[in-house]
Amino acid sequence: MALDSKTDTKPQQFKVVGTRPLRPDGIDKVTGRARFGADMSAPGMLVGLVLRSPHPHARIRSIDTSAAEALTGVHAVVTRADFGPPSDPGVADVLDNCMAGDNALYDGHAVAAVAAISGKVARQALKLIKVDYQPLPHVTDVDAAMAPDAPALHEGRADETVPAGMSPNVMARHEFGHGDIDAGLSQADRVLERTYRTEATHQGYIEPHACLATMNADGQADLWCCTQGHYMVRNTCAAILGIEQGQLRVTASEIGGGFGGKTTVFLEPVALKLSQKSGRPVKMVMSRSEVLRATGPTASSSIDVRIGMTRDGRITAGFAELRYQGGAYPGSPVDMGSMSAFAPYDLENVRTVGFDVVTNRPKQAAYRAPGAPMAAFAVESAIDELARGFGLDPLEVRLKNAAREGTRASYGPTYPAIGLEATLRTAKDHPHWSAPLGPNQGRGVACGFWFNFGGDTCVSLNITPDGTVTLSEGNPDIGGSRASMSMMAAEELGIPYDRVRTVIADTGSLGQNEVTDGSRVTFAVGLATIEAARAAKREMCKRAAQVWGIDEDAVIWEDGAARPAGPNAGQHPPMSLAEIAAIASNTGGPIAGHFEVNAEGAGVSFATHMVDTEVDPDTGAVKILRYTVFQDAGKAVHPSYVEGQFQGGAVQGIGWALNEAYIYGEDGILQNPGFLDYRIPVASDLPMIDTVILEIPNPGHPYGVRGVGETSIVPPLAAVANSVSDAAGVRMTSLPMSPPKLLAAIRSGQS
Amino acid sequence: MALDSKTDTKPQQFKVVGTRPLRPDGIDKVTGRARFGADMSAPGMLVGLVLRSPHPHARIRSIDTSAAEALTGVHAVVTRADFGPPSDPGVADVLDNCMAGDNALYDGHAVAAVAAISGKVARQALKLIKVDYQPLPHVTDVDAAMAPDAPALHEGRADETVPAGMSPNVMARHEFGHGDIDAGLSQADRVLERTYRTEATHQGYIEPHACLATMNADGQADLWCCTQGHYMVRNTCAAILGIEQGQLRVTASEIGGGFGGKTTVFLEPVALKLSQKSGRPVKMVMSRSEVLRATGPTASSSIDVRIGMTRDGRITAGFAELRYQGGAYPGSPVDMGSMSAFAPYDLENVRTVGFDVVTNRPKQAAYRAPGAPMAAFAVESAIDELARGFGLDPLEVRLKNAAREGTRASYGPTYPAIGLEATLRTAKDHPHWSAPLGPNQGRGVACGFWFNFGGDTCVSLNITPDGTVTLSEGNPDIGGSRASMSMMAAEELGIPYDRVRTVIADTGSLGQNEVTDGSRVTFAVGLATIEAARAAKREMCKRAAQVWGIDEDAVIWEDGAARPAGPNAGQHPPMSLAEIAAIASNTGGPIAGHFEVNAEGAGVSFATHMVDTEVDPDTGAVKILRYTVFQDAGKAVHPSYVEGQFQGGAVQGIGWALNEAYIYGEDGILQNPGFLDYRIPVASDLPMIDTVILEIPNPGHPYGVRGVGETSIVPPLAAVANSVSDAAGVRMTSLPMSPPKLLAAIRSGQS
Repeated sequence: MALDSKTDTKPQQFKVVGTRPLRPDGIDKVTGRARFGADMSAPGMLVGLVLRSPHPHARIRSIDTSAAEALTGVHAVVTRADFGPPSDPGVADVLDNCMAGDNALYDGHAVAAVAAISGKVARQALKLIKVDYQPLPHVTDVDAAMAPDAPALHEGRADETVPAGMSPNVMARHEFGHGDIDAGLSQADRVLERTYRTEATHQGYIEPHACLATMNADGQADLWCCTQGHYMVRNTCAAILGIEQGQLRVTASEIGGGFGGKTTVFLEPVALKLSQKSGRPVKMVMSRSEVLRATGPTASSSIDVRIGMTRDGRITAGFAELRYQGGAYPGSPVDMGSMSAFAPYDLENVRTVGFDVVTNRPKQAAYRAPGAPMAAFAVESAIDELARGFGLDPLEVRLKNAAREGTRASYGPTYPAIGLEATLRTAKDHPHWSAPLGPNQGRGVACGFWFNFGGDTCVSLNITPDGTVTLSEGNPDIGGSRASMSMMAAEELGIPYDRVRTVIADTGSLGQNEVTDGSRVTFAVGLATIEAARAAKREMCKRAAQVWGIDEDAVIWEDGAARPAGPNAGQHPPMSLAEIAAIASNTGGPIAGHFEVNAEGAGVSFATHMVDTEVDPDTGAVKILRYTVFQDAGKAVHPSYVEGQFQGGAVQGIGWALNEAYIYGEDGILQNPGFLDYRIPVASDLPMIDTVILEIPNPGHPYGVRGVGETSIVPPLAAVANSVSDAAGVRMTSLPMSPPKLLAAIRSGQS
Repeated sequence: MALDSKTDTKPQQFKVVGTRPLRPDGIDKVTGRARFGADMSAPGMLVGLVLRSPHPHARIRSIDTSAAEALTGVHAVVTRADFGPPSDPGVADVLDNCMAGDNALYDGHAVAAVAAISGKVARQALKLIKVDYQPLPHVTDVDAAMAPDAPALHEGRADETVPAGMSPNVMARHEFGHGDIDAGLSQADRVLERTYRTEATHQGYIEPHACLATMNADGQADLWCCTQGHYMVRNTCAAILGIEQGQLRVTASEIGGGFGGKTTVFLEPVALKLSQKSGRPVKMVMSRSEVLRATGPTASSSIDVRIGMTRDGRITAGFAELRYQGGAYPGSPVDMGSMSAFAPYDLENVRTVGFDVVTNRPKQAAYRAPGAPMAAFAVESAIDELARGFGLDPLEVRLKNAAREGTRASYGPTYPAIGLEATLRTAKDHPHWSAPLGPNQGRGVACGFWFNFGGDTCVSLNITPDGTVTLSEGNPDIGGSRASMSMMAAEELGIPYDRVRTVIADTGSLGQNEVTDGSRVTFAVGLATIEAARAAKREMCKRAAQVWGIDEDAVIWEDGAARPAGPNAGQHPPMSLAEIAAIASNTGGPIAGHFEVNAEGAGVSFATHMVDTEVDPDTGAVKILRYTVFQDAGKAVHPSYVEGQFQGGAVQGIGWALNEAYIYGEDGILQNPGFLDYRIPVASDLPMIDTVILEIPNPGHPYGVRGVGETSIVPPLAAVANSVSDAAGVRMTSLPMSPPKLLAAIRSGQS
């Protein structure tokens, strides 16, 4: 597991890394050849469909499936009664979310499922299932759910961090920080106190959840599904179904977007159970309405901020109380919101308190930098308001307070080399910052932080007899990672990029891999790829040494070839990778390199976003005029993909800021479960998003790579709000800033 | 690559190896869940069909595909013109066999192919392709093809081993042996000279060839197919299509029989080309008639034997000239027939000469111990006739001449520990040998030899977080190898068999593996599995040492757990595999073991078969009364599978001896391309085949394993012939001993 990489401190020259080769999956995706979740079939396959609760909260008195089971063409009906207790209690909520137990906890909660010979028969069967519901009072708003008399979802489940007397819907309390808030605030020239609110939004991935499951009477099972992490699917389903992990082989399909929303299971355990019960393969595909009603949007939030600032722009103290509702089960990302809220700043006095709250909504799932965009919206809005109030340049204020190498982060650790300051300085020097604005136009900036993760990672690199390289990794490619891995392998081996083909191995063919999340893949899988390539190079040097009859330590790998070194230098012509591959069989066998690691050292990442907007004072409509992302990538392996991540994060943040929201009626029913009423930005809503890549190497990665995928969604909520507030002349503290809400604020002079 | 295994010489006690756990693929196969070659589909998939030559030999003047291409629903038509020269000249004949070039060389030779939206449209399209043939003279019999004036298939292609003046259809001459034949024969009391003939037979696998191919404009391709070796498919197709091996990812389906017949490609390059041309996935499935007309049966043979024997049963010299026709291209297994003919015997004077001959028949493919059964039929028939002529016990004669450890084999090497003698002694002591026979009944024995192979092999063993094991290997499971690998891994790791699941990885997920042939898998993949498990054990000991804070060399693996050893013995409780797996993430990352090797040391294998038959003197029909196989398995990992191999080989040999034959008319057209007319033995034709497993450990394998799959088909042709000759009172020298042929022989008093 030891990395030779960290000792590698010389300035690096790259030949492949940093170039922009064609996407290996591009042709497949545009021609329809790529196989997504719904694109797999099996002989004798059944169609599985789910019956969902029409109530936001109800006791399930009984379920009568007899008429459905009697329908010709129905092969299996399952309810929660078909599942035993999971072998790992840690997945109990996941199971309950996939198939309701005693209570349906939200509109759309699964209560039964059928497998039938066709979708038509399955739909008929769903209508024949009789569920006797006893409706219960419900709550969907986070602040309402925190009222002591709110309808309770899970009485008595709060953990020990929650003070006595709080609403039973508060599941946990988190606290981070250091220093003395009151003492800090007392040094300020102004203390701003504001409450900020954000709505739940969905990741909006284009591909609905889909899977094809087969499971034997003896528990041996195979699953094809669309997911960000097929090892997670394996381990979770195995625990839910009470089988061993090794008995379930999961293959990840191509993925049409995930953004965090495909880091858990919904259909998969149900499909496996239906297959086991019917003895047939079962395919399940969600409708868009099911995706919106019953998968995992992000949390909605309500955040109180108190920040003190001197008139020269120094932040003397920062405090925030964050309240996130994460749907019907514990686990909202309020902890990460609390940790990240003040992470960009070097503060003497800082404290955040977060409350994890349950409501009668679908269980939230991760959404790109989970928890951070809402926290940044609150803190960056408050800083902006303070800076503008003092007539200070908001970039200068941020520079004055910016975290740097050696800063003690608000959530505990001390930062190594980081790139926040570089993004701020670059932004300040960028022509965008000094471009003129017209009437009803405004400009906003905001900073954002994300941790980035590492985690369990396995890579196998195999050299084919003709000297091409197949690289096998275990993380679904959601943002171009196959290209990046091929590039890093090619770089390390000294061969052209197109000689390496990276594939996503199934769970039977490679060891445990963490989910594709936490912006971990380019960092962690890249690190393992480089180390696997180094292992293969050592083996190739050994084969060359064997042919030359010299010691293997006297051979080095340079420019794609083994070369005699030291006293033997020049005594033999170099042997290329292809030449060594051709004789592999005769020098011991196939050549490979493998690496397994729990990767540490993912470097934290910062971005500064700048956005110009124009507000129509008659309609409240907002137009994005110009948008520039400044972000530290550590090292951009494939700059086009990095730019794509920057742009995608900005666009999702713009949607969150301006349009997107889960709208629940008083009846607790989701009113907009479709892309007509849940409005994500489309191309015509947006200008080209400009990007500036900065490269402050991450010392924890051999090439300096940091994750880039999540940080880019952290600043836009605040950046857009600051810009709109500037344009509209009224401070907006509640998202989305939809036309009616903005119009009302303009007309009343306040938000 | 160094094996710690070979030093392991203590007598081995096994806990898992040698037991008979349930087949892991059993439920799948009986329920239809297992996915064979034709069971894969893809959205937008087309159906591919092949147009085949109706002539045994013809010049293709032109092919007009315009009408077919114009048919609605046809997306691509390919002929040889669509293929460039292969990037590896070694596959030129393979390409020519998949798609005829200037000449159609046999009845059924592919000349064009179409891909269309349905089978119906594809069949219509085939009829619209106009091929202008110029018929040429043809030859299908091996001896006729060796006549100097025979129609020539490949003028001037004979290699330098062929003496001048021979027929242009003789492609190569092979010679093996040592000593002085004439001197040996002069010491004999009798010299027998006979000519033996066998017909071409087909492997008779139940599953026809099938594949699903997708290939991009840029050459990136995926292939699902039924094969014995998906790496071979990858490498061959890549060479034919001029792409790099790494660009083609091949996944092997379950396989419904192969027996050597699925060790090359037929449809696969055509399907890939059709996919590339149409831009759509293309599925191709052969009919039974196509399988019989245009895949690879074995060679037919004509063999002259000259053996001298003393009256006390000592063989003084053995000579054979073997003539095998291998269809339309060079490469019949006459070399292996020549090497194996006298391999069971310790002879001072031995020589074989083999001629590789082409005819207007489909190119032969491997068939279980390729080339050896025909050679054994000849030699073992001659020895039997000599023994009986002297009134000697045929088992005693074989014992007297049997090869032993230290014998110089007729084909060169010196034998290490081998099991022939053990099979002969066990046969002699078996109740079958002394059981009474009735009228018209006879008994025959014969010995057989096979080399067994090793070759390139890669195995990855991964430990899941819950302590189960996934083993990834690259050889399609044609005879239970997943069970055997799981057993060897479980044995080595000290865990129960059902904690290990073995999967067959695709070519993108694991390094190069030789084809599942040469009885190599249990030996070579088993060896790599054991070494991979040992690597994982070393890593687990390291993790335990880390937890215990002691040196990793002070930890041993015993009974499924790491234990402190030496001075630390007993100071910590043992840590089981599951316990170490649970903390893997916190002690460095996932735990794996990998092994890549070109495996050497496959032990040669011997069998003795004994069979009782009854001949109906009025019809010539033969009934198999009793059949016993005595074979050395080295170590039987899963005895039920080993017995299955013994039985399967015997049954295929019985079919070859009695019924099966390719029947070509004077017109060169195959007259029996179907299982009604090409008659393989069915259950009602056969008694239970008894088996006796002997275990003489192979010193080249850690557990002593030898290949068992092929040897079992070597003796039955001779054993049945010796038995029928005994029963009928007439020596049969030509196979198959079909009722008309046997009746004629009985009536004429000679074969």
